[in-house]
Amino acid sequence: MSTLGSNDLSRRLVLGALVTMPALPGLLDATAAQAQAGAPLASWNDGPAKQAILDFVRVTTDPSSKDFVPPEERIAEFDQDGTLWVEHPVYTQIVFCLDHVGDLVKAKPELKDREPFETVLSGDRDAIAKLSMRDFFEIVLGTQSGMDVEAFRDETRKWLAEAKHPRWDRLYTELAYQPMIEVLNYLRANGYRTFIATGGSAGFVREYAEKVYGIVPEQVAGTEQAFKYGYDKDHRPILTREPKLVLDNLEAGKIENFWLMYGRRPYAAFGNSSSDDKQMLEYVKAGSGARLSVAVLHDDAKREYAYGPAQGLPNTSVGSFSQEMYDMAGKQDWIVVSMKDDWRRIFAFE
Amino acid sequence: MSTLGSNDLSRRLVLGALVTMPALPGLLDATAAQAQAGAPLASWNDGPAKQAILDFVRVTTDPSSKDFVPPEERIAEFDQDGTLWVEHPVYTQIVFCLDHVGDLVKAKPELKDREPFETVLSGDRDAIAKLSMRDFFEIVLGTQSGMDVEAFRDETRKWLAEAKHPRWDRLYTELAYQPMIEVLNYLRANGYRTFIATGGSAGFVREYAEKVYGIVPEQVAGTEQAFKYGYDKDHRPILTREPKLVLDNLEAGKIENFWLMYGRRPYAAFGNSSSDDKQMLEYVKAGSGARLSVAVLHDDAKREYAYGPAQGLPNTSVGSFSQEMYDMAGKQDWIVVSMKDDWRRIFAFE
Repeated sequence: MSTLGSNDLSRRLVLGALVTMPALPGLLDATAAQAQAGAPLASWNDGPAKQAILDFVRVTTDPSSKDFVPPEERIAEFDQDGTLWVEHPVYTQIVFCLDHVGDLVKAKPELKDREPFETVLSGDRDAIAKLSMRDFFEIVLGTQSGMDVEAFRDETRKWLAEAKHPRWDRLYTELAYQPMIEVLNYLRANGYRTFIATGGSAGFVREYAEKVYGIVPEQVAGTEQAFKYGYDKDHRPILTREPKLVLDNLEAGKIENFWLMYGRRPYAAFGNSSSDDKQMLEYVKAGSGARLSVAVLHDDAKREYAYGPAQGLPNTSVGSFSQEMYDMAGKQDWIVVSMKDDWRRIFAFE
Repeated sequence: MSTLGSNDLSRRLVLGALVTMPALPGLLDATAAQAQAGAPLASWNDGPAKQAILDFVRVTTDPSSKDFVPPEERIAEFDQDGTLWVEHPVYTQIVFCLDHVGDLVKAKPELKDREPFETVLSGDRDAIAKLSMRDFFEIVLGTQSGMDVEAFRDETRKWLAEAKHPRWDRLYTELAYQPMIEVLNYLRANGYRTFIATGGSAGFVREYAEKVYGIVPEQVAGTEQAFKYGYDKDHRPILTREPKLVLDNLEAGKIENFWLMYGRRPYAAFGNSSSDDKQMLEYVKAGSGARLSVAVLHDDAKREYAYGPAQGLPNTSVGSFSQEMYDMAGKQDWIVVSMKDDWRRIFAFE
């Protein structure tokens, strides 16, 4: 059993990815061939992964099937980074937060000489690479706190409308996987309600999930900070984001908090990360009747990225697919999706 | 400004209500006239409250209205106890938990001599009446923890299928207010999604909300304990309820955690409690455009109960309507619903 996917290591390497961030704008500047064919999962190649999804939907929605699931119980859960959109070389929300450290220390100069802010401001990428996940949480709580929830929403939307991924020179919101958007649409067309369970901040993902995935804010669960009721200077009631972590959606927290948020065991789950998705995939698959657990394997270095010990590749930390998870997938009958072989097209703009 | 509705006092009196619990089974043993007329809000008398609800729905759903709300943003939030069903003489979940203290001390005999369990087991209603809200939380966490989430669900459903309200000798689930069920249906028929925000445990309310109100589990927010991922003796993955409070939905927590759970400011809110609903009603009403905040006043001693300082009645603590909240309703243009005057019928079985 590989230990390369261990969480501590993963988390320390998250920011390390910044060091090697490639800058290849315009590499895939193809036209956005958005048209969706009449057949479901048009961007998928025929094969066992596509067939497993079609079969799962058929047996859970056919009233004569022994595995029929009543419409009100049809729940599907999706990890976000690395499952619905690109997570390399670094999680988008990390870029967002690092972009806001400057504003934060302008507002609170006392942070300038305090870690982890001093390191971020130094621009020393080797030092930034050594920050821990705790350090990162402190940066998230620092940069996302003390402001009205609606002001945070506006700021997030503004950033998302401008910030671009360095490799494709496209908005992050354009880097959703077209085959997964088709899965979302196909499930919804068959009565499933689709949810996101992310290790990132729900408040960040909620600002684009509806537009990009058709998932409304109330169906996005994530790591959550506290909110505080109060009044502004004009005595108008406001809710403020507070620097206190309430729900930690990493590791098993993702499925623990899914129950807390929604009180359901999903019938289908899609993930890709050894550290943060494997418990969710295991728990969903262990339910009664037909269940679908799908793990996305990043094995397409040409069109996207290839990483993770399961392929004998280096552990790049962001959503790495460990050998342990690969073995679980085999033993527990999950579907492993090869981006290289199973996806005819990766992005809508291709 | 009245201080009678103050929270500390309220909470100390919650259990005090047990002392004076009336026992009048069969008092209103009328036939269940369930037929719903074609006109919306058939169990409402014509008057300003009914008209305000109809007007709000009209202006927010008519595309030519300046206050039109796009369907995806149509969110309505409901308190549960005292707003959707009877909360007197004591919250139903308290009865549920007290019914389970015996089982708890059987499993953990060391609790027998520890407060607050010793007091509950004593049966001394005066002493039980003096327990604080903290004591009650300890009872909730004690009686609802250490078990698999699906086992808890089964136990809750079993209890709800048997336990009866002492006054009407009917299942608690029959004591939902028919006029409010009509509001829920009317809002949903007009594209609103309906949510519960309760001070009670989401896990408890989720077990009947779908059947009683048509509200699915994932649209029920409440006070939440932690969940823990693990394995049973057969190495099957399970989620266990843990004795740790994660989300406290009392007071402003109800609207703070609504944002945490769903990332939205609702367009309509319905409540009744000075301590736990007034911030929610204030925040909703302060939003831009047309907003509807409705406070239910328990002023019908004959058909239900009458209580609260706003009517010059004693503060019975369970959802008391303080003079302060009454004044806020006037200043902020909330709708105050008189159960006596605005509701033609209170229960479906009448």
